[in-house]
Amino acid sequence: MMKLTILGCHSATPRENKHTTSQLLEVKGNLFLIDCGEGTQMQLRKSKVKFSRIQHIFISHLHGDHFYGLIGLISTFRLLGRTAPLTIYGPEGIKEIITLQLKLAKSRTDYPLHFHELTSNSSEIIFEDEVVSVSTLPLIHRVYTNGFLFVSNSKKRKINTSATANLDLKPFHFTQLQEGASIQLEDGRTIENSKLTLDPEQPKKYAYCSDTAYNENLVPLIQGADVLYHEATFLAQHQQLAEKTMHSTAKEAATIAKMANVKQLLLGHFSNRYPDKNEFIEEASKIFKSTEITEDLKTFSI
Amino acid sequence: MMKLTILGCHSATPRENKHTTSQLLEVKGNLFLIDCGEGTQMQLRKSKVKFSRIQHIFISHLHGDHFYGLIGLISTFRLLGRTAPLTIYGPEGIKEIITLQLKLAKSRTDYPLHFHELTSNSSEIIFEDEVVSVSTLPLIHRVYTNGFLFVSNSKKRKINTSATANLDLKPFHFTQLQEGASIQLEDGRTIENSKLTLDPEQPKKYAYCSDTAYNENLVPLIQGADVLYHEATFLAQHQQLAEKTMHSTAKEAATIAKMANVKQLLLGHFSNRYPDKNEFIEEASKIFKSTEITEDLKTFSI
Repeated sequence: MMKLTILGCHSATPRENKHTTSQLLEVKGNLFLIDCGEGTQMQLRKSKVKFSRIQHIFISHLHGDHFYGLIGLISTFRLLGRTAPLTIYGPEGIKEIITLQLKLAKSRTDYPLHFHELTSNSSEIIFEDEVVSVSTLPLIHRVYTNGFLFVSNSKKRKINTSATANLDLKPFHFTQLQEGASIQLEDGRTIENSKLTLDPEQPKKYAYCSDTAYNENLVPLIQGADVLYHEATFLAQHQQLAEKTMHSTAKEAATIAKMANVKQLLLGHFSNRYPDKNEFIEEASKIFKSTEITEDLKTFSI
Repeated sequence: MMKLTILGCHSATPRENKHTTSQLLEVKGNLFLIDCGEGTQMQLRKSKVKFSRIQHIFISHLHGDHFYGLIGLISTFRLLGRTAPLTIYGPEGIKEIITLQLKLAKSRTDYPLHFHELTSNSSEIIFEDEVVSVSTLPLIHRVYTNGFLFVSNSKKRKINTSATANLDLKPFHFTQLQEGASIQLEDGRTIENSKLTLDPEQPKKYAYCSDTAYNENLVPLIQGADVLYHEATFLAQHQQLAEKTMHSTAKEAATIAKMANVKQLLLGHFSNRYPDKNEFIEEASKIFKSTEITEDLKTFSI
């Protein structure tokens, strides 16, 4: 299971109660921050997150509404006495910006700060551990931009607790069972793995795509995702503006969702010109029914 | 008259309802922004300021709680279609930070953006026009830091409206009177300036001092100021911490206010460790009675 918290879902400039893009994804207790507009650290406080649990931050591109909150968050981590390492994934140049600001403030991080700069125009795996793998989704925008695909790793078999209830199993037995091995009891009996376990959970897939022009190259990369977040800065009535600024309309986002056969579509990165966000739902759901809009501090289960 | 709006008065990190340092000073319709912590643009929106009226921004030093909101504000100005020029006054390095971020975003300002980088360790006049002059107040901190002294220019004589009421004066007459000249009426009579005008208003002085260790060198520079804003990050019980971090206590701020014989002292830049801000007043007012604490979005008339 994943839990997605929308910290900000508005485009361009932060306003009172309208925060620019940032999302927090929790995968089995691990927290991943995706983009970091100005004010993200205040939104994180509102959502009661323990800051030190964030160890990986993914920045899609170097437009301000997606990363102007990053240097402040890095500084706040230091002021809070952080010791846990932090890795920033983002376009080439992000290291130079952050280190220049730390240098001019005669500041430094007391915790290990790593940068993983991205330059590829093809999808690549940039992070992988026991619980999740993260790969890039190359987007089409005015500057070099990536979305990110999070896939939970579910290699461990599930314990069939009703089958194990009457056996006197030790902790190492459970580890062996999760890994797919058969076990030997203390009385010498061997029990086959399949009698005590169930197949691993289906991996969950979350695809994050902001900002991008209409981009059919995404379709094979996000095929069958459980949730697709796709930017919808504009409504179709402003199609020309979307093309000019290399953003998408709600209609285009829904078209991508339908082609990729995802289970659910979330829309965000709304232009400030639309007072009624339900228009985005109306436009998108004509093409792809299972559409929701994001809102600041709203959470979604994946 | 000046009007001071506190946009943020807290130190270190922004939190919900606790904004880092920024102030807006209005002098005869002209707006000057002083420091610009993360989230300042949201605070400006709350205070209903027309953004384009801000044409000069003064940054005291390159610690994040005083300037991490600047790049976002510069970007927002562009998105709002600004054409008015903007000048940033701040320590050497500020131009490099801002231009690097604009470059990596493939962005630019459509309005003229000027930088006036400061390097002097002596007080100098950095801005002067018809209504105000601004000079630096060298401070003692962990990085190169300046406070700023704003002095309203009041060279124009005031029209004595009860004396002019019965005369048929044209607009150019008023201009001449304000400039100190005598005037000639249409009937040929000459009237002496002193019969129709009053002395100019006393210039108003606002001194802004954040962040600084205890610094008696300030005293002659801010002598007799109408209002002194002086940082008071700590209470005297944490004197050692103040010295170590090169900040001031409320007691030290009050001592400077007393020595400089200012009319009013405002305290701010509070550490988050003190839940009761009245302790700052209590400590300072033992030494300097006319002390107030700042609060986010509070305004003061000078």
